[in-house]
Parts: sequence; C-alpha cells; structure tokens
Amino acid sequence: MSMELSDIQVCGRSVKKCLADIEAFHGFTAPGLVLGAFMVDWAQELLGDDVEADAIVETHHCLPDAIQIFTPCTFGNGWMKVLDWDKFALSLYDKKTLTGYRVWLDLEKARQFPNLYNWYMRLAPKKDLPLEVMVETVVNANRDALSYGPIRVTQFHAPLKKGNTEICPGCGEAYPTAQGTQCLTCQGQGYYELQQ
Amino acid sequence: MSMELSDIQVCGRSVKKCLADIEAFHGFTAPGLVLGAFMVDWAQELLGDDVEADAIVETHHCLPDAIQIFTPCTFGNGWMKVLDWDKFALSLYDKKTLTGYRVWLDLEKARQFPNLYNWYMRLAPKKDLPLEVMVETVVNANRDALSYGPIRVTQFHAPLKKGNTEICPGCGEAYPTAQGTQCLTCQGQGYYELQQ
Repeated sequence: MSMELSDIQVCGRSVKKCLADIEAFHGFTAPGLVLGAFMVDWAQELLGDDVEADAIVETHHCLPDAIQIFTPCTFGNGWMKVLDWDKFALSLYDKKTLTGYRVWLDLEKARQFPNLYNWYMRLAPKKDLPLEVMVETVVNANRDALSYGPIRVTQFHAPLKKGNTEICPGCGEAYPTAQGTQCLTCQGQGYYELQQ
Repeated sequence: MSMELSDIQVCGRSVKKCLADIEAFHGFTAPGLVLGAFMVDWAQELLGDDVEADAIVETHHCLPDAIQIFTPCTFGNGWMKVLDWDKFALSLYDKKTLTGYRVWLDLEKARQFPNLYNWYMRLAPKKDLPLEVMVETVVNANRDALSYGPIRVTQFHAPLKKGNTEICPGCGEAYPTAQGTQCLTCQGQGYYELQQ
C-alpha cells in the first residue's frame, strides 16, 4: 500500500495502525474489518464525541470485532449486541435517547469498486482478490461504498438482565430458573460429552 | 492488593497486568473477568500450548470478554461461540479433535470464599463487596473455587457458514435468502425506525 493510503486516518489512528490493531485482536487482517473501521469511523463522527454509545451489529461475521476494536463496546460488557442476520451493517446510538446512525455497505455504490463488490458478493475466487488488493480497494473506497441513515432503536437496546438463578439439582451449578427445574445441560441439550 | 497477590501469574501475565488489560478492553474491572482469567488459565494449561483452541462460553455476561482478552478467540473471528445459558462456565477445545476442557465456578468449593459465593449468588448488596475486596478474594481463591472436566464437544463447533445471499428487493442490501423473499428488516422485524 502506498505511503499516502496507509497514512489515512480512521477511528483516530492511521490505516497502518488500524491494520496492526485488527491483526492483534482478530488474529489476521480481514478486509471486512478494514471496511468495518470506516463504518465505525463514520457512525462515530455522525454521533459526536460526547455521546455514550451502544452498538448493534447485524452479522456474526467479522464486523463485531470492528466494534470491539474501535469502540468501547464489547460483547461481554453488553454495550454491543449482535444479530445473526448476515447483513453488513452496524448501528451506533446514544444509549440514553436511543437515537443514532446505521451505516451499511451500499451495494449500488460498491459497484464502482468491482473488487469490493465481487469480494462481498463472492463473485470472484479468493485467490484473485488477495489481502493486499482488498485492503487497498477498501481504503481507496473509504466512505464511497457506504451509506448511513439516522435511526431510533426500537428493540435489542435493553441491558441484559440476569433472571432468577438457583442451584441446578442435576449438576450443582447455578442456572436461570427460567430454563425449568434443571439447567439445559442436565435436560440433555448440552454441547459436550464428559470424557474419562 | 498486596505486592504478592498482584504479582501472581495468570494467562502469562501478572495479575496487575491482567487488571489493566481487562480495564482497557472491557471498560472497567469486573470481578467476573478476573475469575474468568483464572478459568482461561486453567483450561489453557490443561489443553497445552501446542493446541489450536476454540472456545465456548456459557453466558453472555462478562465471561466472553475473558476469552477475548486472554485467548486468540473472538466473537468476530468465530473461534468463540457464546451460549445465552447464564452459567459461569467456559470450554477450550482442540478444534481438530473436538476434545478439551470445561472449567466452571464450583459453588460447593466457592462456599469457602463467602465474598465470592455471596457475590455470585447475589446474596450481598454490591456496596458490601467493593471491587478491591472482590479482586483480592478472587485472586486468593485462584483455582480453589473452580472445577474442570475433560469433554468432547458435540455441537456448536462448526464454523459459521454464510448461506446463499441475494439482494433484498426491499432495501437493496445483501441478505441471506434463507430469511425469505425479503430481509428480516423489510419483513418488519428490524430494530430501528428511520428518523428524518
């Protein structure tokens, strides 16, 4: 990537630093996370610095890590919710007023960046779109393949509450009584077999 | 916290560094994450250094961030799955053999640390268990309030696959066709109202 591109600022840091931060957290540089950095950057700018923001991400793939790297919102602190809807979109909103901005990959706009369009729509084999090409394409596109809309969040904004918990008579671990008289694992829905 | 306690090693770093890493990522020091560090540490030790591990966490609260801070697994890279089961337990397992270890807060053992037991079971008001007391309790407890079991993972281990996507005739965004002829948002299940 040219000096000029790697010096572009996004989410308060250079693209070069962005790439390093993505690799450190995510384990590898994914083009979707570079795109995600530009999405977060735009949403943050629209929302303003002085707003305490929560996040909703509309896919499980990649994008949640852009929120976790570039904002204070994480999965575990509950400030980021993730919907398994497979849409390349995220929203940042004021947790008090519930108003904010949704930013998404706008496919119509993305058509002017064929590498980006073909990558996202899986129209080209991966080997034809190596990482370096994709990063350069995404950084060049900057916000030009994105759109945003002002929104008011109507659901999924409530903090996760712990319900009533008791000790499961099966395993002796604490579990939410809403699951029944035993925990889900003791009801046979567990994800593991015990080994010797 | 005493010098001796803050120097204890967990997840390859001192407790002091652990606390700093938790605050940097999670936004604040949560006792559950300190406990989580000891859980991850034990699971990693059991599994061994040379194993490429995936993670399953059994609650949305706090604990997913322990995995994200102390292992290479994140929500967005798909190496960590999170179940909304409200159990304070996590598993690390070899992604090839699917065998690994589940580590959990063992309430019977936790009874010998009343602050820990009362905190987890919400039997004491928060003001009676300030952060400093909780961190000291958790570090003192180390692995003595935890148990582990060797497991073979039987579900939730498959990598998340993207299904077939097309362009939604409603909004023009890409969406998984498994959702129907329009995306969920265009079907009225969205989480936002557009603002002027």
